[in-house]
Amino acid sequence: MTGTHNNGAELTGGHSIAGEWRIGRGKPFCSVEAKTGTTLSPTFHEAGAAEVEMAVAAAKVAFQQTRSLPPVRRAEMLEAIAASIERRTDALIARAAAESGLPEARLKSELGRTIGQFHLFAGVVREGAWVDAVIDTADEARLPLPKPDLRRMLRPLGPVVVFDASNFPFAYGVCGGDTASALAAGCPVIVKSHPAHPGTGEIFAAAVADALENTGFPAGVFSLLQGAGIEIGALLTQHPDVEAVGFTGSLGAGRALFDLASARTRPIPVYAEMGSVNPLVILPGALEERREAIIEGLTLSITAGGGQFCTKPGLVFYIGKDVGNSVTNNSVSDSGSSFVEALAARIASVPAITLLNAGIQKRFAQRLTEIAAIEEVDTKVAATCRGNADSSPSLMIVDAAVWRRNPTLHEEAFGPAALLIRCRDTAELLNTLEYVSGQLTGTLHTGANDDPETVRAVADMLEPRVGRLVFNGYPTGVEVGRAIIHGGPYPATTAAGTTSVGTAAILRFVRPVAYQNVPDTLLPPALQNANPLGIRRTVDGQLTTAGI
Amino acid sequence: MTGTHNNGAELTGGHSIAGEWRIGRGKPFCSVEAKTGTTLSPTFHEAGAAEVEMAVAAAKVAFQQTRSLPPVRRAEMLEAIAASIERRTDALIARAAAESGLPEARLKSELGRTIGQFHLFAGVVREGAWVDAVIDTADEARLPLPKPDLRRMLRPLGPVVVFDASNFPFAYGVCGGDTASALAAGCPVIVKSHPAHPGTGEIFAAAVADALENTGFPAGVFSLLQGAGIEIGALLTQHPDVEAVGFTGSLGAGRALFDLASARTRPIPVYAEMGSVNPLVILPGALEERREAIIEGLTLSITAGGGQFCTKPGLVFYIGKDVGNSVTNNSVSDSGSSFVEALAARIASVPAITLLNAGIQKRFAQRLTEIAAIEEVDTKVAATCRGNADSSPSLMIVDAAVWRRNPTLHEEAFGPAALLIRCRDTAELLNTLEYVSGQLTGTLHTGANDDPETVRAVADMLEPRVGRLVFNGYPTGVEVGRAIIHGGPYPATTAAGTTSVGTAAILRFVRPVAYQNVPDTLLPPALQNANPLGIRRTVDGQLTTAGI
Repeated sequence: MTGTHNNGAELTGGHSIAGEWRIGRGKPFCSVEAKTGTTLSPTFHEAGAAEVEMAVAAAKVAFQQTRSLPPVRRAEMLEAIAASIERRTDALIARAAAESGLPEARLKSELGRTIGQFHLFAGVVREGAWVDAVIDTADEARLPLPKPDLRRMLRPLGPVVVFDASNFPFAYGVCGGDTASALAAGCPVIVKSHPAHPGTGEIFAAAVADALENTGFPAGVFSLLQGAGIEIGALLTQHPDVEAVGFTGSLGAGRALFDLASARTRPIPVYAEMGSVNPLVILPGALEERREAIIEGLTLSITAGGGQFCTKPGLVFYIGKDVGNSVTNNSVSDSGSSFVEALAARIASVPAITLLNAGIQKRFAQRLTEIAAIEEVDTKVAATCRGNADSSPSLMIVDAAVWRRNPTLHEEAFGPAALLIRCRDTAELLNTLEYVSGQLTGTLHTGANDDPETVRAVADMLEPRVGRLVFNGYPTGVEVGRAIIHGGPYPATTAAGTTSVGTAAILRFVRPVAYQNVPDTLLPPALQNANPLGIRRTVDGQLTTAGI
Repeated sequence: MTGTHNNGAELTGGHSIAGEWRIGRGKPFCSVEAKTGTTLSPTFHEAGAAEVEMAVAAAKVAFQQTRSLPPVRRAEMLEAIAASIERRTDALIARAAAESGLPEARLKSELGRTIGQFHLFAGVVREGAWVDAVIDTADEARLPLPKPDLRRMLRPLGPVVVFDASNFPFAYGVCGGDTASALAAGCPVIVKSHPAHPGTGEIFAAAVADALENTGFPAGVFSLLQGAGIEIGALLTQHPDVEAVGFTGSLGAGRALFDLASARTRPIPVYAEMGSVNPLVILPGALEERREAIIEGLTLSITAGGGQFCTKPGLVFYIGKDVGNSVTNNSVSDSGSSFVEALAARIASVPAITLLNAGIQKRFAQRLTEIAAIEEVDTKVAATCRGNADSSPSLMIVDAAVWRRNPTLHEEAFGPAALLIRCRDTAELLNTLEYVSGQLTGTLHTGANDDPETVRAVADMLEPRVGRLVFNGYPTGVEVGRAIIHGGPYPATTAAGTTSVGTAAILRFVRPVAYQNVPDTLLPPALQNANPLGIRRTVDGQLTTAGI
């Protein structure tokens, strides 16, 4: 039945369970065209316990069948998935554009990144050193006891559940970074599709099923379950044979999954990337040097993609002389306040855009209302939210003292909005940054005239709170590579030691295993004496590709 | 006041909070001499919220002061602690021997390991590559967008709480592997001393305080709190400024800490190493080849240290032709049953030994009673438990089918005891191993006549369940080095991706941070262009010690 997906024109509305398309009997739901609200065909059905059982059972068997395959086979599988996705480019972009409202140009670039991620991990797996093979050879003559032969490497965990994210239907979607990195690690994946773009999910599932078949992998390596309710996610997270969960979405949903996973008889890790307000600090020297450039860059970073990036700078801290004055009193003229007025004017000029779906639109409007309800908050640019086809950006401002005592102002407003936080001076800025919780990113804009000690003090305040520290730039636009960390202390994620983007993302789905005096023929090839994979290993403390 | 500890003769009974000795006002308790039950002086006092607050506050400040110190300073501090402990060798061994009942020879070797761990981590920190510095340089000309300069490395988490373990008063004690690795990572440590050996804990705390002072480190880097109840551990784990917990002990206590940490507003990782039954499988070929050696080795591994090692082999699986017959029917003669009789005789010859404390003795006796209460379990060697000064080893045996349906037989009996599980044939052995939960270790004994496919099948069954797979050896005796993994899937630990022994233990107390376009002078030295630390780094995909 997968043939029906080759051009995406005929969707089944089914779950893809180990390569079989199964039309569910659960509660029906449809996605809608984001721009119009028009219902899209086909009808999908909520997966239930039976589908979860089938998908996990197939994944468990597939894990046994594949966990010790040569790395080159896994690399070929990842490359086949990339090619299979690429062949469906037109269908994916058409369906995702309808379901998400995202512009085609953005989706095209996001699909490129998505395909690129599979190639990136294929390269990592093929190169092979990522398994961190460490070998300490035996010393029979050691006293008082002989030293055993000990070798360790990273091994896959087993079946992994991935939650398709709403805001990146490709790059964090059914075949996003979590899926690519889990498959690269050697783990079968069961994806819970996002109810806002189930059709997009189905096309991806067909792409993976084809690729698995073409490369001789068991179909149980991948399943896609559809669902609009929260029960299916809970069933998957609680299934005793699931070993880890990857999630990108809200703090509430991510924390709920974390709590379920932690309360299991056998707890499992949840790699949830959740909300982030991505504080951005602008020191006076930066405004002196490049006020216009900052206004332009900041406006783009706040509003691009409808502000629906997890790295959108939601809080902008600056030093303004007019703290405590009425924030609407434009007669107070200093670099801070003129910056605010110019930024407001620029943001007001950004046209309304279509948000991803009605739920996001509704929560965005709610958050803006909550923020504006704090009396001392001044709305510089009011968003107009008329249905999800028409949301314009918002800019609000508040004094740091007010911000510090109102925790609701510390939380994310997911959409094209930012809150300016005006600090009296450097001391208040540093004091205020103490209140910033864990974040994906923190950004600092400085200029030549800023006091170096102040610059260092702000950087030292941001660094322990973030996964990525950005200087004189913008946090949106996440580079997919070796050095990126897309993660951060809670509540940005539930696993600050990891990243969900870049090559290191593979490390979430493995654990180290040590082998003591295990015969060469029974060792994984990565640890065998001859080094048949030719990978870089640490042998008796020295990095080498040589055999033993 | 630390001077009073130089020879351990005069203990204060106080908490060591950031270098100050504070006599508590909490509930008093004393340790007892393990061999006699005689109360030892001085009187200690239960720490409470006030002491926790002081210790954590001092640790938080100390973290700010030390988190960016040059690695060489940290290495010097670790070496100073090693030397400071070594100077207290006699006092430590005398006090620990009294409080734990462990023989001096064992304690001497354990202290050597403990001191060695500080030297090991000093070496890791000095060498420096462990921070995993990865640098991707900028490419301004890249299209469609310039590539930023991105650099990442591992950075310390902040204050860490360590729970002193009862069974290794040195190696997993106040200055055990958790403390050494957390300090090496750059994290201040607050230790909750074990109530069975508070005096030993105090001597260690004095050693650390001296070393910190001598190397110019703030005293808040280390505190020791005394306590016999569970409240103090909960307070520490729940404190908002604590960033991670290291624990070695029972499943119940470890899981309770994990649950507390997971339920926090801001969850933190708990690295709990808990119970393990360390399955050991003996295939017929092994018994043919070296029956006597296995009986000797296994007896030692089960009974050494009173069986109070987390790696003690508690479950021994073998194939015996007499399955289903009365297990006391010695007339059935095959290699399996004669092995059992010989093993029983050898184990019965092991003299009674002193267990660590009355609580452990009591739980050991309870567990043996629980196991023996299952009708089909046959006691080959009955333990005599007369007070904790006199506990002899136990050996019991059960058919695999009975074992599979009695979960109480799957759990640890902490002490000198093992349960033999007799399987009918290879098929039943493999089927039975499916029921084995997560373990620190799994061991397989094979001989030349064993079917290679069977050997591989057993290894494939054990490997996903363990942190370390041992061939033709014994799991006790954990090598402290680069390749060791002392960890494993739950319930062996709460963090299967980590190890609590060996150099990789440092990775538990750090998280990666990325730096985007950060000026060279503001980067940590490990990431600066000139590579001032001279460490091995990954620069644009190539390992190098060269500067940029």
